[in-house]
Amino acid sequence: MATTLAVLYTAARTLTTGPAETAPPGPGLVELAPAYVGICGTDLHIFHGDMDARVKAPAVLGHEMSGRVVRTGPGVEGYAPGDPVTVMPLRWDDSCPACRRGHRHICQNLDFIGIDSPGAMQQRWTVPAATLVRLPDSLPLDQAALVEPTAVAVHDVGRAAIRSGERVVVVGGGPVGTLIALVAKATGADVRVVELSAHRRRLAEQLGLTTWDPDADDVAKLVQQWTDDAGADVAFEVSGAEAGVATAVDALAVRGRLCLVAIHPRPRQVNLHRFFWRELTLIGARLYDRADFETAVRLIADHVVPAEKLISKIVPLNETPSAFEALEAGGDMMKVLIDCAGESPESAKADVA
Amino acid sequence: MATTLAVLYTAARTLTTGPAETAPPGPGLVELAPAYVGICGTDLHIFHGDMDARVKAPAVLGHEMSGRVVRTGPGVEGYAPGDPVTVMPLRWDDSCPACRRGHRHICQNLDFIGIDSPGAMQQRWTVPAATLVRLPDSLPLDQAALVEPTAVAVHDVGRAAIRSGERVVVVGGGPVGTLIALVAKATGADVRVVELSAHRRRLAEQLGLTTWDPDADDVAKLVQQWTDDAGADVAFEVSGAEAGVATAVDALAVRGRLCLVAIHPRPRQVNLHRFFWRELTLIGARLYDRADFETAVRLIADHVVPAEKLISKIVPLNETPSAFEALEAGGDMMKVLIDCAGESPESAKADVA
Repeated sequence: MATTLAVLYTAARTLTTGPAETAPPGPGLVELAPAYVGICGTDLHIFHGDMDARVKAPAVLGHEMSGRVVRTGPGVEGYAPGDPVTVMPLRWDDSCPACRRGHRHICQNLDFIGIDSPGAMQQRWTVPAATLVRLPDSLPLDQAALVEPTAVAVHDVGRAAIRSGERVVVVGGGPVGTLIALVAKATGADVRVVELSAHRRRLAEQLGLTTWDPDADDVAKLVQQWTDDAGADVAFEVSGAEAGVATAVDALAVRGRLCLVAIHPRPRQVNLHRFFWRELTLIGARLYDRADFETAVRLIADHVVPAEKLISKIVPLNETPSAFEALEAGGDMMKVLIDCAGESPESAKADVA
Repeated sequence: MATTLAVLYTAARTLTTGPAETAPPGPGLVELAPAYVGICGTDLHIFHGDMDARVKAPAVLGHEMSGRVVRTGPGVEGYAPGDPVTVMPLRWDDSCPACRRGHRHICQNLDFIGIDSPGAMQQRWTVPAATLVRLPDSLPLDQAALVEPTAVAVHDVGRAAIRSGERVVVVGGGPVGTLIALVAKATGADVRVVELSAHRRRLAEQLGLTTWDPDADDVAKLVQQWTDDAGADVAFEVSGAEAGVATAVDALAVRGRLCLVAIHPRPRQVNLHRFFWRELTLIGARLYDRADFETAVRLIADHVVPAEKLISKIVPLNETPSAFEALEAGGDMMKVLIDCAGESPESAKADVA
């Protein structure tokens, strides 16, 4: 047993940092030293207390991470101490109807690690070896913390089956929306990002994306002009707002596809008549599979997704509570990372140079 | 010029029968003698006055029909007087974005014959030769009047891409819902029909379908039992009710497909979270193309769809107004046909024997 530092969610709006015990990993398990952990929208929902029915306090959050192998349990092959890895934070039961149909990533009894079981916001983290995804040595670990949300984007673009040359509207330009836009663009699509926040629009523009402000622009009209009155081939709903759903539906051409990425906790008013009239398709998309993760690693390593430009701020592990509070208060943030080891991004880069 | 009888929609809840003039068909046109015309839900909406913004009174309704060629205009080849035909009542502009994308059946400037231009509830009807679909001589013309709604069902089953062995829930057991259930079953699916009306459930059962009563049965629970807790592969929303949408969404397995057939004039509350969580797909389906029509002719001719069993009543042309009133008042009706020629179904059958 050894003692390291962990961040604990203990109650709504309450995070504390404190000691956590570590033990040698059991069979099939691997102990990691998380390097960087991203704060996700879901983590903020948990912090809010919105997910207390599911998250059992005290809980360690965090599912967007990069790190290194510390030691491996019995029976684990192919990994050695120091290996750079990320984790695909899913454990399925392999027996539910979803698993039996081959859709294990949406297992009906899914253990989402970092929500349903302890996550990565700690200095030592033990996970099943099967969840590990190897990282190239050349990939800076701060950037690698964005593999998980990039895998979401890869999965979403795949669910929408985007083809080169298609016109794509992304409604919502937060981290996942921006990553979807980048991945869709890399697939050869012509992309527009609809986003309320001027800061996020500016960042998207810096990434080479074209943006529209739904407060100032008549998005439906702009779509018509852009597409010679046809409408867009694909829209992604990443805003989570009812108005965002309407914007996405109204943007679509005949036989257009709406990929639903955002979480809408409550039922939404949806213009079903337009789905009928234009023979639209709505496609739900959730999480990712291993192929999506491996594609995401490659897209970041190859600089197709410039992950470093999406990182707004890196805070040390013991400042995690105030980082959550700052994110909750809003502010001009894209992705905030927690530095679990106390390494600065520069030292991490030097480490692998 | 000659004078024949037509049914005219003149104002909300007002149909009259009166003389109509006929003239020799122009180039590319064919004059038909409609034999039987079905009364469709859309015809009832028009009768209600709900579609006065679109339907210009006085208007001749009717788009589900069978009949015979009377004479052909210049340039029409392949049809001779007496040929039995039905009409695919669509005229597209071949230039709008939908047509340019190959989806002419949902042309953005579609002329739906019988709504946007004169329909079949008359003794002589002139239509473009391109809209004709030939009928086998052996097919009784009263049954052939159900080709159009059967083509809708064929199109819907095609949009849902049903595979043999899949479990399918049809929400709404009116004429189109029942036809969808029959076509899906012919495709090899295991089908359940959810329908409020005892009369329609009884008819569906007589057609060999299994039905559930959403008032008496816990449909979600029955689906779980039927599918070993997996959920259905496909649901068709044919009820037009918000509760029907919820029933369909709740019935679906992971990656299930919801085919949206019904017209929902107003936005509906939709559980988008479940689309996300189970990666469901919603597929809008409208009308049909020529291949759907030809398949529908074959299914009826081959008795796969026992059209005769869906015909509740046949009324002569001059009783059309009271038939609409009776349908509006409810009553235990499936499909009501108008006999334009005054032929009884028996004499029509004798005619082709």
